[in-house]
Formats: sequence, structure tokens, C-alpha cells
Amino acid sequence: MSDLGARILAGDQRAAARAMRNVDDRMPGHLELLKEIFPSTGRAFVVGVTGNPGAGKSTLTDRLIERYRAGGRTVGVICVDPSSPYTGGAILGDRIRMTRHATDAGVFIRSVATRGHLGGLSRSARDMVRVLDAYGCDVVIVETVGVGQDELEITRTAHSTLVVMAPGMGDEIQAIKAGILETADVFAVNKADRDGADSTMRDLELMIALGTETMVASGKNRAHVVHGGVKVDMIPSGPETPDQERWTPPIAKCIATRGEGIAELVEALDRHRAWLDGTQAGRARRHLRLAEELRESLRETLIEAATHALGGEIERAVSDVEAKTIDPYTATEQLLTAFRAR
Amino acid sequence: MSDLGARILAGDQRAAARAMRNVDDRMPGHLELLKEIFPSTGRAFVVGVTGNPGAGKSTLTDRLIERYRAGGRTVGVICVDPSSPYTGGAILGDRIRMTRHATDAGVFIRSVATRGHLGGLSRSARDMVRVLDAYGCDVVIVETVGVGQDELEITRTAHSTLVVMAPGMGDEIQAIKAGILETADVFAVNKADRDGADSTMRDLELMIALGTETMVASGKNRAHVVHGGVKVDMIPSGPETPDQERWTPPIAKCIATRGEGIAELVEALDRHRAWLDGTQAGRARRHLRLAEELRESLRETLIEAATHALGGEIERAVSDVEAKTIDPYTATEQLLTAFRAR
Repeated sequence: MSDLGARILAGDQRAAARAMRNVDDRMPGHLELLKEIFPSTGRAFVVGVTGNPGAGKSTLTDRLIERYRAGGRTVGVICVDPSSPYTGGAILGDRIRMTRHATDAGVFIRSVATRGHLGGLSRSARDMVRVLDAYGCDVVIVETVGVGQDELEITRTAHSTLVVMAPGMGDEIQAIKAGILETADVFAVNKADRDGADSTMRDLELMIALGTETMVASGKNRAHVVHGGVKVDMIPSGPETPDQERWTPPIAKCIATRGEGIAELVEALDRHRAWLDGTQAGRARRHLRLAEELRESLRETLIEAATHALGGEIERAVSDVEAKTIDPYTATEQLLTAFRAR
Repeated sequence: MSDLGARILAGDQRAAARAMRNVDDRMPGHLELLKEIFPSTGRAFVVGVTGNPGAGKSTLTDRLIERYRAGGRTVGVICVDPSSPYTGGAILGDRIRMTRHATDAGVFIRSVATRGHLGGLSRSARDMVRVLDAYGCDVVIVETVGVGQDELEITRTAHSTLVVMAPGMGDEIQAIKAGILETADVFAVNKADRDGADSTMRDLELMIALGTETMVASGKNRAHVVHGGVKVDMIPSGPETPDQERWTPPIAKCIATRGEGIAELVEALDRHRAWLDGTQAGRARRHLRLAEELRESLRETLIEAATHALGGEIERAVSDVEAKTIDPYTATEQLLTAFRAR
């Protein structure tokens, strides 16, 4: 065990902070560190928080922190900011919160920017969660800035995904379209004192009812096709998931600014966690997510290895395609063959 | 040359439609078809259209079609809908438009849904563009439903990316954060008769000025880091791009519903195309995009080949990680080693 690894397991906050930076930057040795701490992970409850900008995610996350702390749980927060490589990483709201909780040793907040490694962002988030898990956080919240496919992808690294909505943002239908329904485990309709809150609740309830029906009709229970052009059906064949095992995302009505509805939200998330642990469908979900992680990790590792092994050959292929002496499909096949021959 | 390939090159619309379906579904033989038609591609001008829902992308695209048709150019449109695999592909707006242009043989509209192959969506879009290019479209518009990282990724398959904004949507800052500034070649502020149009224009102008400065300061001219954890600097070393070669995204004020500002928009896009062809910086940009395509294509091909070669070994690794008999990092390394040994 390295010194850094030992210090993380001993609850040294500075060691955890340094490890998270190393992991995010994929510094030399970060993989060895992750291997070392892996056996000490698996205890933390990981909650993903996503939703459109303006839905009040930060305020809600803040209230969740407060509530978890009041219950004696330590909390780690990872803010994923898909900002451009030019504008840099730190988020204003993040900084404000860091100041607010600065005196509480039970709260640990870090942000991660894309830094151009889009495909690797959920990998970064997942690895940073493992550091916080090994460090001893009871709950780790992964909060995204927006609500696109990437953000959903990132929150899929969590045990439970909370999708925050607000009335009158015209985002309900769009949200559903973006695949939220398959990813959300719990919904929060925030700013519930605003006009349109009831209609947002109704829309959402209807969508959930319809979505569940569709999923049942297609014989799938929250199953997901794995990305990368390869369609993998991870649903265990055999008898259908019994009705009582199916998870229907609850909707919590909140007013985060006033702290209303937060207890119900925490309770809903805890119920989802119990579902994950206590039912066959829940365990199948966890297995599926792990399979997704491994596949994603393999994909990233493959392209890194190929880039390393092929060196300038890739750039030569680009020039050949540009000169139209070869088509990009044949060029790709030739690169694959060359890589496998090394 | 296959029969289908020959029919596409001869301008047979039904053949093109079938080929696009085959490409989107990655049916057997689709790669051979793409290889066949590749030498006949490269003529079409490919325009990506993205922007937040509600910004008026569909109406604007409609006006662009109209304008291009009036100028005698044939137009192909690919609508990329990141809808869930459950809700399916066809878009309402798409259907409406298809009806509207149904009698015009010079307009060809198709939609593509994610169908769970997120990583491969820009590949699908790019390949479908090639079909429309070989089929003879003068302009191909790739329109996305939202404006997330994936959508930006998709519009990066285009020659010129048009980002559509609307006043008072509170999306300006968010848009910039999401990396739009590095991707947008032309901005349209639509609904310019609404309150806040001027402030949106000002915000955007400021952001563009700041962004250009930052890029110049960092010695980069619209350069981009390639995804996948591997950072590749594709900027040709050597003298800096001269100022007169730098592209600064113009902003077109439009009222799409009334057809205002569309001529200026078409003109701005054509100017960008001329920049791509006529300057060293423009050609470097095209080279960079081609390099991105090849890298992405290689990544997808690698994971497909590995999945095929490793078969059940991946699933066994998942179970081992689940049982904690191995960590996911070591498991990934072992899978890579096993793949390379095949």
C-alpha cells in the first residue's frame, strides 16, 4: 500500500484531495492507487443529481448535504462541470458552497471539468467517487451542471439518480426525450410554490406511467443498451421481473430555498437504495451498471493502447483519406489490423 | 459497384433512403456500400444546426431549405433526435416538414434516433451525410433537437456549425459553458423581435471577443482536444495563424417565422465555407475534423472487435469485479491483454 493510499483510508482529507486531482488528471500512478483502494470501497451511497440549469440543483444539493449531515452522515460532493477547456473548471456555485461548508470536516466538495476528455468524464467521476468512498464518505453526491446525454451518462455512475425539475421551464417533454425516464430513479419537482407546479407533477406522473408501461410491454425492466455501436442485452433471461420488484420513480415536491420536501426526498433516495440491495431487479441493475463501467473502461483503454502502438500511422491515415487515396472505412480497418499485429 | 450504390449515384431517392436506413442500423454490407460511394462524396456543403429547444431551429431550418431551393440548390436534411430507445425515433416537427416539402423532389428529409448507440451517433450522422452527398444533395443540413455535448459532437461532423439562440431563454451563459464557442461557426439570434434580443446579441459579441482572445492567448486557433482520454494536439506547429485568417463567428439576427435575416444567414454560412476552402487555417480545421472522425471510428471499431473476440470473458470479468475477487482496473488490463493475444 502506497503512502497516499494509506492516508486516504485513514481519512486524511488532503490525501483524498490530492488523489482526486491525480485521478482527474490521470497522472502516472493513479491506476495503481485506484487498485489499492478498491477493496475498501463499496460502502458509500452514491447519489447522482442532474437537471436543467435553473431548476435549482445547487440549492437542493445544499439541502441534501444539510439533511445528511444532520443525520450524522458524512458527505462528499463532486460537481461535474462540462465547461469548455478554455473557460476552465471551477464553478461559482461550487465555490460559494465550499465557503459555506468550509468549517464542516464532514463535507468534502470537489469539482471536475471536462478538460476535453468527454468520453472519459464518467470514468473520472466514477474514480473520484471511489476515492471519496475509500476516504470514508457515507454519501457521495455527483452533481452535474446541465442535463444532456453526457450528464445522464455521468449520473449513471451513481446508485440512485435524482432528476431535478422546476415548473414552467418547458423542459418536461424535452427531458423525457433526452432519455431521462430510463435514468431517473427519483424526481424532484423543485420550486413547487410556483405556477405550473401541479401541471409539471401531472405531466411527469403521466410520463412515468406511460414509460413504465412501454418498458413492461417490451419485456424490459430498466434495462439499457450499452453504447459504442455494440448492442448488448444485459437483461437476465428467465422469468419476468415480478411487479412488486419493479421500481417506479417517486416524485418529491420540494421548495429547496425553504428546505421543504427535503426529508421526503432523502427518504425516497434511501428507499431506492434499499430496492437496489434488496430485490433481484435491483441487483440486476447494479450488475448492469458495473458491466457498463467495465465496457467503457475497456473502450478507453483500447483507444489509448492503439494510439500508443500506432503512433504516427493514425496521422498518416488521416492524410491518405484527405488525399482520397483511401476511404476512411478501409483506413480504420487497416489501423485495427496493424494494432492487433503489434 | 453494388446495385444499391449505383442507384444512389444515379440519384435514385428510394435507394438513398434505403441506404440511410442500412447505415443507421449498421446492417451487414453497409460498410461496403460506404466504401463504394466514398469517392463520389465531398461535393456537398454540410451545415450543422443546433441550439436549445425553443430557439426555433426547425423554423429556421425550414427557411434555410426554402432559401437554398430558391437558389437552385438541392437540400438533404438529417434530424438527429436523441430520444430514448423506448420512445422511438420520429419527430413531430420532422413529420410536419416532410409533409410540407413532400412534393419537392429537391428536398430529402430523414431522421435518426440514438437507439442507444450514443457513441456511434455522430458516426451514423456522418455516414448518412455521405449517402446524401453521393446521392447529389448540394447542401446537407444536420439538425439536432437539443444543444448538449453530444449534439455539438454531431454538428462537428458538419463543415459549418450554426448555433441558434433566442432572447430571454437564459441560455447564453450556459451555452457558452457547454463548449459552444469552440464549435459554433455562425450564430443566429432568432426571434429578434422579442425583448432582450439586443442584450443577447451584446452578450454573445462579448463572449466571442473574449473567447477569441483566450484562444489566441493560448496559442490555439479553434483547435480541439480529441476525446477518449487521449489528448491530441492537432495544431500544426510553426508560425501562428495570421490574424486575417482567423475566423470570428458572425451573428445573424433573424425572425425565422417571417423569413427575416435568412439571406444574411445563408451568406454567412457560404462565407464560412469559403474560409474553410480558401485559408490555411480553414484547411487545418478540416484536417482536424477528419482526424477526429478517424479516431472516433477507430475507437468504435476497436470495442466492436474486442467484444467479438472476447465474447463471454467480458461478462465473466464483470462477475469477478462484482464478487470483488478483482478490481475493475486490473480486469480491464487483463481484457486488453487477452484481446491483443488473439
